Amino acid sequence: MASRSLRRSNPITLVLALMLVLGFMLFILTPDKSDPIPKTVTPARSRKPPAVQRYHMNTLKATASPISNQEKVIILTPLAKFYDEYWTNLLKLNYPRELVELGFIIPKGREGNLALSKLQDVVHKVQTGKKKDQFAKVTILRQDFDSPVPQNEKDRHALSAQKARRAAMSKARNSLLFSVLRPDIAWVLWLDADIIETPPTLIQDLASHDKAVIVPNCFQRYKEGGVSKIRPYDYNSWHDSNDALKMAGTMGKDDIILEGYREMATWRLLMTGEYKEHGSVHDETKLDGVGGTALLVKAEVHRDGAMFPPFPFYHLIETEGFAKMARRLGYQPYGLPNYLVYHYNE
Amino acid sequence: MASRSLRRSNPITLVLALMLVLGFMLFILTPDKSDPIPKTVTPARSRKPPAVQRYHMNTLKATASPISNQEKVIILTPLAKFYDEYWTNLLKLNYPRELVELGFIIPKGREGNLALSKLQDVVHKVQTGKKKDQFAKVTILRQDFDSPVPQNEKDRHALSAQKARRAAMSKARNSLLFSVLRPDIAWVLWLDADIIETPPTLIQDLASHDKAVIVPNCFQRYKEGGVSKIRPYDYNSWHDSNDALKMAGTMGKDDIILEGYREMATWRLLMTGEYKEHGSVHDETKLDGVGGTALLVKAEVHRDGAMFPPFPFYHLIETEGFAKMARRLGYQPYGLPNYLVYHYNE
Repeated sequence: MASRSLRRSNPITLVLALMLVLGFMLFILTPDKSDPIPKTVTPARSRKPPAVQRYHMNTLKATASPISNQEKVIILTPLAKFYDEYWTNLLKLNYPRELVELGFIIPKGREGNLALSKLQDVVHKVQTGKKKDQFAKVTILRQDFDSPVPQNEKDRHALSAQKARRAAMSKARNSLLFSVLRPDIAWVLWLDADIIETPPTLIQDLASHDKAVIVPNCFQRYKEGGVSKIRPYDYNSWHDSNDALKMAGTMGKDDIILEGYREMATWRLLMTGEYKEHGSVHDETKLDGVGGTALLVKAEVHRDGAMFPPFPFYHLIETEGFAKMARRLGYQPYGLPNYLVYHYNE
Repeated sequence: MASRSLRRSNPITLVLALMLVLGFMLFILTPDKSDPIPKTVTPARSRKPPAVQRYHMNTLKATASPISNQEKVIILTPLAKFYDEYWTNLLKLNYPRELVELGFIIPKGREGNLALSKLQDVVHKVQTGKKKDQFAKVTILRQDFDSPVPQNEKDRHALSAQKARRAAMSKARNSLLFSVLRPDIAWVLWLDADIIETPPTLIQDLASHDKAVIVPNCFQRYKEGGVSKIRPYDYNSWHDSNDALKMAGTMGKDDIILEGYREMATWRLLMTGEYKEHGSVHDETKLDGVGGTALLVKAEVHRDGAMFPPFPFYHLIETEGFAKMARRLGYQPYGLPNYLVYHYNE
């Protein structure tokens, strides 16, 4: 059984948590008057110590106007490798920093150590810099297991390695999510560590569609004969097909369907194929599966129970299984075929 | 579809969160030297402000000796009605308070308001009392939806109402879990608001078995002819049967199997039936389904992704679906047939 074979590599006991609590302490100690959530409504009954603080969260909504409504966002990144370009792009996001928290989970092992060290440096720099540039909070979790398969691009995409790799990734995502989501967060932005270019307004743009789950189209820049071009990268955002559903019907309960492999022709309509060079970035399409390279989710979807299944769930795992789970909970995922974000090109 | 019909009653946007942060602030500001998790390992690079605090959590384990290992426990209770006996029993639990957090979620509506008011009073009393009696943290979340069906004992057990009721309960449990679980918590004790009598050593006793998921047997005290007797209460802890599995095989994808209803004879072996009056409280039995009236879970099981499915998952929902999900993740649930806890008798 898949779940069994993964168990050894997956005691999601977290070995190391680096928590940068300054922001959080400041948040507690010096309540920001401009922030309506949470607002102190009744004073503590006894002035010292203030043992009962009461917060109303009536305004905890995830809306199409998240900034004017002061909605808090947490950006979650499973980080196996640190790319300067990822961090540079992250810092360009212009959602108000005091409303943004960051959460990272880093695998064990030498490469993880390296990534952690680099991440700490850049986080330290920002969090000790100008107050307005500081994130509300940064949490870094360290797994006690290494990546189950080689992280180099060719090997990790091999069909045979995908199930183990994506099950481990699911557990990493779940560990992060279950550990850092708090009651005052309105939105969760999943942003992979190898996403190196997005519009600076990514959060606002995605939120403006007011969807429970929404995903941009993930492409990759490359050069051909000195000319810069783009090509599709993430095939996990798709519309289901009868072929894929039929395939699922004949599979064993632990088998999964994967997208983008010649060995497994699903004939699903992929969102990458819906990209139109001069199409509107506002175009929406309903999706059945979603990728997680960049993915905005209303926190209530996760709070209802939607996670990233590490086991085959309707023969789907990780972000594709998450989309199915969201649908089972009554939430329709959407994609933006012409709104592009770019993946690192190894 | 079930998930669809529940959607309206379930925007798990949390309307009100009452957070009692004193304990947490103290924890941050005056690190307790007797507590090995987390321990400051490297000093902040710059002395003021201490923007990067580094915590090692090597010792974050959930073991059979949780007290000597200083393992943190969070007790989670969906609370629709406040029973004095529940609180009295909770206060009798003798796990060290500084290692115990409490989390509550309370439905909207008049009964919820009443429960909230009573809960606030008793929490305030404890948290402003002697330091050694204070819980490490108390979080109270308020849903913005009411209970979907009448809360009186007869009506809420009607077979027809069970699916909606238990789906709503699943979402309440998930909301609570996803909002309050933090990286330093080792164990989650689910304790229903109508559990009014347990051994004071409940946490240690259950933990001593070192199981990922473990559930005591939930009974009820009653009087017959002036004589005090006990009878089974929670039928959700069971061993699967061929009849139930066959039943599942013929069901529609949104149908669920429920236990304890004459209309639906599963012939599952129930843990309530395994109770022996003079049997050892240490007896263990492997379970396929578990109830949630009292349920101890290693936090890593939740962090791997195990939640309470509000939709039919292998034709199971809520705590029974959780047990199935834990099994899919490779964790075997256990029950203690002769270790009793008692449910309120309406």
